[in-house]
Amino acid sequence: MSGRRAGVVLALLLSSSLLGDEGQWPPDQLASFDAKSWAALRARGLMFSPADLWDGKGGGLLTGTIQIGGCSASFASRDGLVLTNHHCAFDAIQLASTPERNYVRDGFVAKTRAEEIPAKGGPSRALLLSRIEDVTERVRGPVSAFAAAKTDVERDAAVERAKKEIVAACEKTPGARCQVASFYDGLAFELQAQTEYPDVRLVYAPPRAVGEFGGETDNFRWPRHTGDFSVLRVYVGPDGRPAPYAKENVPFHPARFFRVSEKGVAPGDLVMVLGYPGRTQRYLTASGVRNAEEWFYPLRSRTYADLIAILDGATKDDADASLRVSTHVKSLANVETNARGQIEGLRRNGVLARVAEEERRFAEWLAKAPSAAAAERAAPKALEEILAKDRARQERRFFLEETERNPGFLFSALQAARWAEERAKPDLERDAGYQQRDVARARDRERNATKSLAPDAQRKALAYLIAKAMKASAGEPIAAFGETFGRDASAAAIEKRLAQLDASTKLADESVRLANLEAPLETLKASGDSYVRLALALSPDLARVRTERKALAGALLRARPVYLSALREFRAANGRLLYPDANSTLRISFAEVKGYAPREALLAEPQTSTKGLLEKETGAEPFASPARVLAAVRGKRFGRWEDARLGGVPIGFLSNADTTGGNSGSPAVNGKGELVGLNFDRVWENVAGDFGWNPERSRNVMVDVRYALWLIGDVDGQAWLVDELLGK
Amino acid sequence: MSGRRAGVVLALLLSSSLLGDEGQWPPDQLASFDAKSWAALRARGLMFSPADLWDGKGGGLLTGTIQIGGCSASFASRDGLVLTNHHCAFDAIQLASTPERNYVRDGFVAKTRAEEIPAKGGPSRALLLSRIEDVTERVRGPVSAFAAAKTDVERDAAVERAKKEIVAACEKTPGARCQVASFYDGLAFELQAQTEYPDVRLVYAPPRAVGEFGGETDNFRWPRHTGDFSVLRVYVGPDGRPAPYAKENVPFHPARFFRVSEKGVAPGDLVMVLGYPGRTQRYLTASGVRNAEEWFYPLRSRTYADLIAILDGATKDDADASLRVSTHVKSLANVETNARGQIEGLRRNGVLARVAEEERRFAEWLAKAPSAAAAERAAPKALEEILAKDRARQERRFFLEETERNPGFLFSALQAARWAEERAKPDLERDAGYQQRDVARARDRERNATKSLAPDAQRKALAYLIAKAMKASAGEPIAAFGETFGRDASAAAIEKRLAQLDASTKLADESVRLANLEAPLETLKASGDSYVRLALALSPDLARVRTERKALAGALLRARPVYLSALREFRAANGRLLYPDANSTLRISFAEVKGYAPREALLAEPQTSTKGLLEKETGAEPFASPARVLAAVRGKRFGRWEDARLGGVPIGFLSNADTTGGNSGSPAVNGKGELVGLNFDRVWENVAGDFGWNPERSRNVMVDVRYALWLIGDVDGQAWLVDELLGK
Repeated sequence: MSGRRAGVVLALLLSSSLLGDEGQWPPDQLASFDAKSWAALRARGLMFSPADLWDGKGGGLLTGTIQIGGCSASFASRDGLVLTNHHCAFDAIQLASTPERNYVRDGFVAKTRAEEIPAKGGPSRALLLSRIEDVTERVRGPVSAFAAAKTDVERDAAVERAKKEIVAACEKTPGARCQVASFYDGLAFELQAQTEYPDVRLVYAPPRAVGEFGGETDNFRWPRHTGDFSVLRVYVGPDGRPAPYAKENVPFHPARFFRVSEKGVAPGDLVMVLGYPGRTQRYLTASGVRNAEEWFYPLRSRTYADLIAILDGATKDDADASLRVSTHVKSLANVETNARGQIEGLRRNGVLARVAEEERRFAEWLAKAPSAAAAERAAPKALEEILAKDRARQERRFFLEETERNPGFLFSALQAARWAEERAKPDLERDAGYQQRDVARARDRERNATKSLAPDAQRKALAYLIAKAMKASAGEPIAAFGETFGRDASAAAIEKRLAQLDASTKLADESVRLANLEAPLETLKASGDSYVRLALALSPDLARVRTERKALAGALLRARPVYLSALREFRAANGRLLYPDANSTLRISFAEVKGYAPREALLAEPQTSTKGLLEKETGAEPFASPARVLAAVRGKRFGRWEDARLGGVPIGFLSNADTTGGNSGSPAVNGKGELVGLNFDRVWENVAGDFGWNPERSRNVMVDVRYALWLIGDVDGQAWLVDELLGK
Repeated sequence: MSGRRAGVVLALLLSSSLLGDEGQWPPDQLASFDAKSWAALRARGLMFSPADLWDGKGGGLLTGTIQIGGCSASFASRDGLVLTNHHCAFDAIQLASTPERNYVRDGFVAKTRAEEIPAKGGPSRALLLSRIEDVTERVRGPVSAFAAAKTDVERDAAVERAKKEIVAACEKTPGARCQVASFYDGLAFELQAQTEYPDVRLVYAPPRAVGEFGGETDNFRWPRHTGDFSVLRVYVGPDGRPAPYAKENVPFHPARFFRVSEKGVAPGDLVMVLGYPGRTQRYLTASGVRNAEEWFYPLRSRTYADLIAILDGATKDDADASLRVSTHVKSLANVETNARGQIEGLRRNGVLARVAEEERRFAEWLAKAPSAAAAERAAPKALEEILAKDRARQERRFFLEETERNPGFLFSALQAARWAEERAKPDLERDAGYQQRDVARARDRERNATKSLAPDAQRKALAYLIAKAMKASAGEPIAAFGETFGRDASAAAIEKRLAQLDASTKLADESVRLANLEAPLETLKASGDSYVRLALALSPDLARVRTERKALAGALLRARPVYLSALREFRAANGRLLYPDANSTLRISFAEVKGYAPREALLAEPQTSTKGLLEKETGAEPFASPARVLAAVRGKRFGRWEDARLGGVPIGFLSNADTTGGNSGSPAVNGKGELVGLNFDRVWENVAGDFGWNPERSRNVMVDVRYALWLIGDVDGQAWLVDELLGK
């Protein structure tokens, strides 16, 4: 990009709308905004300078935000309390539960710090950002392997190799977890170093009937009355350094934390939503949007809906099995609902037409822009060719990958086979996720798999996926499936055959699965286990699919960075600043507490309360509040948390923050830096927001921290915890 | 009731709130309101006096409202055009359709009067009110059979007999259709005489995708974008008198009609909704509300949902069968959705608690009121005893009655058996619905049954109901079922047996069914038809169920009128006037165009337009508008019907009119007496409104007449019809 020219254009055209409510800004981009933007934010109540938020050296208010179990979270006391969503801590709550102590159903309350229990599963590790470093030069500079790559696969491998080397060097520091993140689809790369804290404990979780109030019915909906929060605490060794769980560990004292606000929010308030948004696709071409709208999401929605029906049907008369598949079903349901929302949102928001129009104007500009290089002019066509070629194979790949990730015996066997193959390579040449650094997580997964083992249900789901994969691979059959299942590729026939495999496999035994994870290929081959045999036979096909993905990635690395660079220039020429797509790195979104018009003749106000909870209450799931909550609401025992205007304790609120998946658990912070709520969802009309922000409909859903304080203090009587959150 | 005392209380306490928006007022009650009420209505824009609305002699503005096919409707031109709902004219549209001319799918457009076609089925007869006469004295006066009755069955028979005599005398006038309606559960009786016009023709119907836009998804919902209207015309003989269809017939010139408004409505406007509401239960005791909430509606919802699933499942691969059961499925779906709404509404509106509280205050008042007679004081207890006794048998009755009314061979056979039995009695002693006057309708039903015959699907539904009935009758087995189906009372076994019956019955033949309707019992017995045999065997059980119903009715006639009379006095003492429950007689509701808050944090505005139609459009049912409509909306070809504030042609609007089933097709008339819309639904939150009006949530849904005019004139090019509706 022609920096000088763009700079002039910026100075001429950019107003304070630059830092509008659209944008998931990386910390290091904040310093580049103009004074007018900051003045506008100060006028809205922001009491911080850009440098207060992020000092460029790993410090600043933003670092109160952490990552935990794939979610965002925040420090909320000087003694290391962490707030995140109930659904982000769900693994920990479920894994700590037994039929006798059902924390999922009843909630978890530590009455003292001594009663705080280790969080297992996803939420067992807290990741705190420590450093950001631009590594573009090392990854793809003129003297890199990237520059020298002759094929797409080589190009991808070069980038992956460089990333791994950088990560490996970074992770030599004890407790460091590092990643190299791609910005603008490979135009820039940043090393993001985090410190991992492996002793996280569960402090408070509401009953599921609070944390998931409304269930799937209300998922992605507004008005909302879900208490989707949990309280954790990070512990460190007596020396103050990250340490695995030990009795003598002490609460961590984070450099930055967000004191919880007693005042809460009101419509019009400024809020900043901080977190780790996972992935957006704001800069797709029209053909990409069309593919998402017409192929990917419809197929995902159908497939996941079918899987949910299969798992529900197979466990409906078996409470134990039903509990075992619940995490999987929940995750499928969430993704399925999201997929429908994407389809509906893309259609209703007319994203395709808008993107097509933008593409047309971009092409016009590109044809005339004096600054555009030949490569930039050629980028759109090159990009479309890559995509068209890939789409011919996408359905086969879809079902093979879904088969590969379906929880159960085959998954464990494939993991073992994969580890055996990757372990044979030097660490740095292994695929991401199969390096020495990933061993602990793989073992955790197998341990947790014991709790979610439900062979009868998982077999039915697997049979369904294999049948689909076989059908989608008619032109290029999958040998392993042909050998194992013969000619009758019906789900019923496949399931019958899988039942035979189930009868002879040893993989129900956790110790066998753990041993397999470390077994060399020869040992696996010799084991003769029915599923290990199938996995080994299937591995070449899955490896080819991975190579296909790598070739695609390498090809896109040719075209997308050039395309994005040209697009950034085009936008700047029109007075609009490009922010990078979400990539699971720390971002900040500036927003306002604000309602919206979901559709014609409906207005959504931005706050809900216990009054609306009572309206929804039916006594039956998903609208069955726990007795103690109901009694407090009906008895109007709201204590100091009553909001007279709302007629009860505030529960949910909306803002126009720019969020996506991964922002779950994100703190919403007011202009004073106080925590006022936790992000946990988007509204239905904004699910397709990943493809484009919309001022009318981009709204995220948060739980008001006052609801949490009321439940913890007034309903469950833990005044000590409320005091700690309030900094008293 | 102590009239004098109540009168004094009224004069002291009643303000203009008397004629508030609650109340479905009978025409003859209007004159009894005070001057203040009328002044308030005039201030809101009403340009009529009570006598203008209803002159007490069968004339007045209200008589522009008619009854058609169980719905309400209105005259809308001097040449007898009639406006009603699409769903009210649906039978006629469907029965006129063939695979080649699919009026259901494409809509029906008569380009000239000559192209107007006879409306068959339900909408083939228009009923115009001609006279109201108080007949309480004759039905239940001191010298009546009612007064002399010694048993509950006798008491019911006495009332039925008296009603039939009055109706028979009334119907000696050619073309007269008469009914005796009970007010306040038998406290008063009125003869309502209507003139029947048997030549009704279809003039215009929108495509189903307009008339049912949103389908079940939007049923009972707001915001709404359904063009639920159709245009019919009443014809009479050249002499101006009612006459069956004949080529030489001419358009009817009604005494009153509502000119269609060009201006439409705006929020805050006064509207009157006129029509024939079917049934409300505003004066139930708490035990009655509980029975409705906890037994009746849940059972109905489950049963009908099962039936829908059975019929859909049985016809999903057979387009023809699917079309044949569509009317039945549609009606089941409507009732099922309604049942769920009732349950949810009763619960959410806390009706039971409110009724219980009112009951408590009523009991208190009753204990102390000097005017209350001993019978009045005893009425609540007597009533509860009757109800408790009846509830012990209600589930058995429920399934037997559902079995009896399930469309198909058994239905036809039972009808034939019933007619044979009833025909043996003198006309006046027959049960309602089986008198000479009902023959034509019974024959119509059998003729229409040919079009909806779908033996495979209907058999499955019947098997399901019989299995349920057998289960609910375990303590008192149904002999005919035991004989026919043996011991295995599973639906599968029953269906197998029914398939044998299907194989040998002759009832698929319309002429056989029509002949059976007139056959004496001996002929039926001799016929040996498989279903006729089952029907004859089942008849005694069904007759006992009817007797049970009659005994209940007779018992309630002891208790309910006294109870209602006392309640009326109690209400008057508290400044509230009692209006009678809906009973399918003409009523008027005064209302305002007004939004509402469906629940916390949501506001519903009272108007929708083509803008929102486009938002909902998905291209797939139930949101797939016809191409010509979509093109006009997308091209913004709104003509003079655009409402700039709404951004398109207005489609739906809300008011707080007091409506219920039977009000479908009701005209909404502005203060000048111009027609501005047609009622066709209520909002979900108001479905339980039958048990109590609620100012916050009682909203009905109407289609704006401007949408109809735009579709007819601008989209379908029938300017002549628009001109006629506008009186040009």
